[in-house]
Amino acid sequence: MPTTTEITDPADPRIAAYRDVRERDLVGRDGHFIAEGEVVLRHLVQSPRHKPLSLLIDQRRIDGLADLLAQLAPDVPVYTAGQSVLDAITGFHIHRGILAHGMREAPRGAPALLGSLGSRALVVALMGISNHDNMGGIFRNAAAFGADAILLDSGCCDPFYRKAIRVSVGTALTVPFAQLAAGEDIVDVLATAGFTVIALSPGGETELSSLQRPDRVAMLLGTEGPGLPTPVMARTRTVRISMAAGVDSLNVATTSGIVLHALTRTT
Amino acid sequence: MPTTTEITDPADPRIAAYRDVRERDLVGRDGHFIAEGEVVLRHLVQSPRHKPLSLLIDQRRIDGLADLLAQLAPDVPVYTAGQSVLDAITGFHIHRGILAHGMREAPRGAPALLGSLGSRALVVALMGISNHDNMGGIFRNAAAFGADAILLDSGCCDPFYRKAIRVSVGTALTVPFAQLAAGEDIVDVLATAGFTVIALSPGGETELSSLQRPDRVAMLLGTEGPGLPTPVMARTRTVRISMAAGVDSLNVATTSGIVLHALTRTT
Repeated sequence: MPTTTEITDPADPRIAAYRDVRERDLVGRDGHFIAEGEVVLRHLVQSPRHKPLSLLIDQRRIDGLADLLAQLAPDVPVYTAGQSVLDAITGFHIHRGILAHGMREAPRGAPALLGSLGSRALVVALMGISNHDNMGGIFRNAAAFGADAILLDSGCCDPFYRKAIRVSVGTALTVPFAQLAAGEDIVDVLATAGFTVIALSPGGETELSSLQRPDRVAMLLGTEGPGLPTPVMARTRTVRISMAAGVDSLNVATTSGIVLHALTRTT
Repeated sequence: MPTTTEITDPADPRIAAYRDVRERDLVGRDGHFIAEGEVVLRHLVQSPRHKPLSLLIDQRRIDGLADLLAQLAPDVPVYTAGQSVLDAITGFHIHRGILAHGMREAPRGAPALLGSLGSRALVVALMGISNHDNMGGIFRNAAAFGADAILLDSGCCDPFYRKAIRVSVGTALTVPFAQLAAGEDIVDVLATAGFTVIALSPGGETELSSLQRPDRVAMLLGTEGPGLPTPVMARTRTVRISMAAGVDSLNVATTSGIVLHALTRTT
């Protein structure tokens, strides 16, 4: 069992990273992130790519986490606090009683990431996904069906936002991803790396069930509502999911699950 | 354009139904519900089954809703308020500026609902789904793929909770459903009505892709984590969705989308 340090003053400077998490999470974080919950902490502790800087844990949870804490590098401080101090630090009720402050690895460039994949590879490509629930859900599905990587355009939100990590059940820390800079064209980047781009759209030319999966394939998803821009779709193979009459569209995370299931099923 | 009544005092008794919506929504509501947003309001106004009792709308939105308000029965009051009064009434920021207070039709019994379906029918059956996001997402998927009805056991949350209606994009008001009483057995009820029950489970005997769809079929989903009870699964055909190694499970709403797509695809 590692040494733990009890925090009794919510203003203690040692736990400054956790203060008012909800508001601070939306501003520039310079590679730092906050993760919560046991499953996510487990992913972080075992990650070859990201690093825990400290933990802040409800003191009642410490005993149950002994095996996990034993895997932690000895220089990572483990702070404990009672529930009311925890809530005062973070500014809301931490239901699970487990928080980690982490530092992500330096972002990878898209060409390097795509170039590292094999001759048969599946990438999830996203344009303008700004909702953290959807981002987390898409990562979870990508992990569930073994997608090789996720590629984000500059209009997507950060998968390392606390809520996205939580909804992803920690897979935001495990599925490799890269994010393009503003002005970079996601279809061009994928095509240059040898990927066939399949764009999902309610009016797509091919029904998903009859799609023959290309070996190196990227499925491209846009936001609900506006969907993918027409000039983008014009440079891709468009695919639709048949739905009942009168229904607009599916949630984008659900769509990712349906397409991933279909593409990995035909493997 | 119907007559509207401007509300300037958040304590006005005429809009009592909207006061502190977030807290009140969790207590007994006796058939009343609160819905929000334009798409949901549209479903409510056109519903043959549920009735709007009043509307409360940001005054800046009134002009844009003229066509919808013209379809409203003339005895339904339309209250308007500025954003700050709206927020003071409801206790949180109403982003969309559109709220409706409605009364649902009397709940239907499961035997009547199931008996009304044709010789080829698809039902989504749920056990213990207590999360309103998941409930809303499942209704949305059921509508998207044309499921005929949803059957809930007594452990499920109410699909007419405000957040469930919102996530369902109003389909909680359109997809027929029934909820069992405590002690009623969901597998028995479905079997009696002539439905083959397909239970989704990570360890299911048949892979979803190779399932031949029975004509009258119910897909049974339980909560993430514990999943369906073993004695329940023992009386059903169990089906799995193949996933990558090391991944536990999918989100239950995503699962419903994948299964609905597969079952309607083989039609």
